Amino acid sequence: MDTDKPLILVTNDDGITAPGIANLIEAMKGLGTIVVVAPDSPQSGMGHAITIGRPLRLHQVHLFDGIEAYQCSGTPVDCVKLATNRILPRKPDICVSGINHGANASINVIYSGTMSAAMEAAIEGIPSAGFSLMDFSFEADFSVCRKVARAVAGKMLSERQAPGTLLNVNIPRVREADFRGMKVCRQADAKWGESFEHRVDPYGKDYYWMVGNFICNDPGEDTDIHALERNYASIVPVQFDLTDNTAKQRLEKEWSSLQL
Amino acid sequence: MDTDKPLILVTNDDGITAPGIANLIEAMKGLGTIVVVAPDSPQSGMGHAITIGRPLRLHQVHLFDGIEAYQCSGTPVDCVKLATNRILPRKPDICVSGINHGANASINVIYSGTMSAAMEAAIEGIPSAGFSLMDFSFEADFSVCRKVARAVAGKMLSERQAPGTLLNVNIPRVREADFRGMKVCRQADAKWGESFEHRVDPYGKDYYWMVGNFICNDPGEDTDIHALERNYASIVPVQFDLTDNTAKQRLEKEWSSLQL
Repeated sequence: MDTDKPLILVTNDDGITAPGIANLIEAMKGLGTIVVVAPDSPQSGMGHAITIGRPLRLHQVHLFDGIEAYQCSGTPVDCVKLATNRILPRKPDICVSGINHGANASINVIYSGTMSAAMEAAIEGIPSAGFSLMDFSFEADFSVCRKVARAVAGKMLSERQAPGTLLNVNIPRVREADFRGMKVCRQADAKWGESFEHRVDPYGKDYYWMVGNFICNDPGEDTDIHALERNYASIVPVQFDLTDNTAKQRLEKEWSSLQL
Repeated sequence: MDTDKPLILVTNDDGITAPGIANLIEAMKGLGTIVVVAPDSPQSGMGHAITIGRPLRLHQVHLFDGIEAYQCSGTPVDCVKLATNRILPRKPDICVSGINHGANASINVIYSGTMSAAMEAAIEGIPSAGFSLMDFSFEADFSVCRKVARAVAGKMLSERQAPGTLLNVNIPRVREADFRGMKVCRQADAKWGESFEHRVDPYGKDYYWMVGNFICNDPGEDTDIHALERNYASIVPVQFDLTDNTAKQRLEKEWSSLQL
C-alpha cells in the first residue's frame, strides 16, 4: 500500500457488491490510495447501528481491480470502526460512503446507513461525505454521481477539511445536460408518513410490511429537497452534537429545579 | 382503553422482558393510560435502524398487570412506528423509552436504540424522553430512576410540551440520599476508542469482538458527563435537524460554485 498518497476509505450500506460502491471507487481513482471496507450484505435503513453481542467477520475480497477490499458481516458503522482499527495503516485522509441507491436527503439522514458510516468516520476525526442518488434501481445511471463525488472528494483532499466535517451529498436523477450544479443546503423539515400493510402468512399468522410516503411541508428555498427538485446536487453539512441549544436555554431554569 | 386520560406510549431497546421497562411502566402508573410496544429481543446499539425488506411480527402479551402490551420483532424505531400506526387509537400525549440498562449520555445518543425510539416519536410530533441508568447489571437498582422518570413525564404532561421536544435523560448509579437533582445540559464532546479483540473459532476462522473505552476530553461544566459525575441526572434536549449551520455558512460560497 502506497501510504504517501492520500488514503481514502470507501464504504457503503448497500453491500460490497452493489453497483453504487463500484461507481464510487471508480470516481476516487487517481485521487489517492483506495481501501474498501463494506458490508457483505445490504444494510439499508440500519441507521447508526453497531454490532454488540455478536462477533464480526472480516474477509478480504478481490472485486475491484488492484484495490484492497474487505467485506464485513457487520453494519456500515462496524465497517468504519474495523477499517480504522484493524485494517488501515493510519487514519485515512477522507472517508466516502455510497453511492447509495436512493436519496438520503432531509430526515432520511437519520435512518441512513450510508450517512451513519460517514458520521462514524467524522466522529473519529476523519473528514467524510456520504453520496446518494435519487434512483433505487439496480441499473441506475451513476455518471453524474461519479463526477460529483470526484469533485467533492477532490476539494476535501486539496483543502484539508477540518476533522469533524461531514457532508450529506444527494444527487438528482438527471442527465448531465440537465444537471445545474451543487448547492449547500440545510436539512428540509420533512418526515415519513408510514403505514403498515397487514398480511396473513400461509400458517395463518399476521405480519406487516412497512410502507410509507415522504411528506415535506418545508417551503424553504435553502433546503436539500428544494435544490434536488430543481436538478441541483444538495450538500448539507451535518453535525453529531444533537444538543438542541434553543430548547436547552428554555428548559434550563425551570427543569433544573424539578423535584423528585 | 380509557382514552380521555393522557395516553402514554412506553418502549425500550433492551426488550420487553428487561427489568428497565418494568420499572418505567411502574413509574408511569397513575399518570395516564399506558400502552407498551417494545422489541421481543434485546436491540441495544441499534441506533435509528428500521426494518425494511423483512416483514414485522406483532404479538399482544400479558406481562404487566392490567396494561395493554405488545412485543414486536423489529427495532425500537419500528415499535414506535407500529404503535402510532396500528395500535394506538390516537397520537399519544407522550412517549417514554427505557429505562436503559447503561448510560446514553454524550455521543452514545447516536448509537442508542432507546434514544432513537424517543427520537422517532418526536419526529412524529410526540413529546418524548429516553431514560438511561448508568448501570448495566440485570439487578440494577432503579428506585431513583423511577422517581426521575415520573417527575419528568409528569412535567411533560402537565405543561403540554411542544411537539418535537425530545429529552435525553441519564441517571447516575447512586442511592437516593446521594442524588443531587437534575441538570439541563449539553451533549459532552466525547467518543469511543474502539479496539477489536481477535479470536479464532473452533473451525480455524478469524472473528472479532468489538471492545471500547469511552474517551471524554470535554472540560465543560455544562455537559451531561460533568453532571452525571457529580451525582446529578442529566437532561439534554435533543434535535433531529442535523444541519451544521456554522459549517453551512462557511461552505456556502465556495462549495456552491464547485464545478464537475
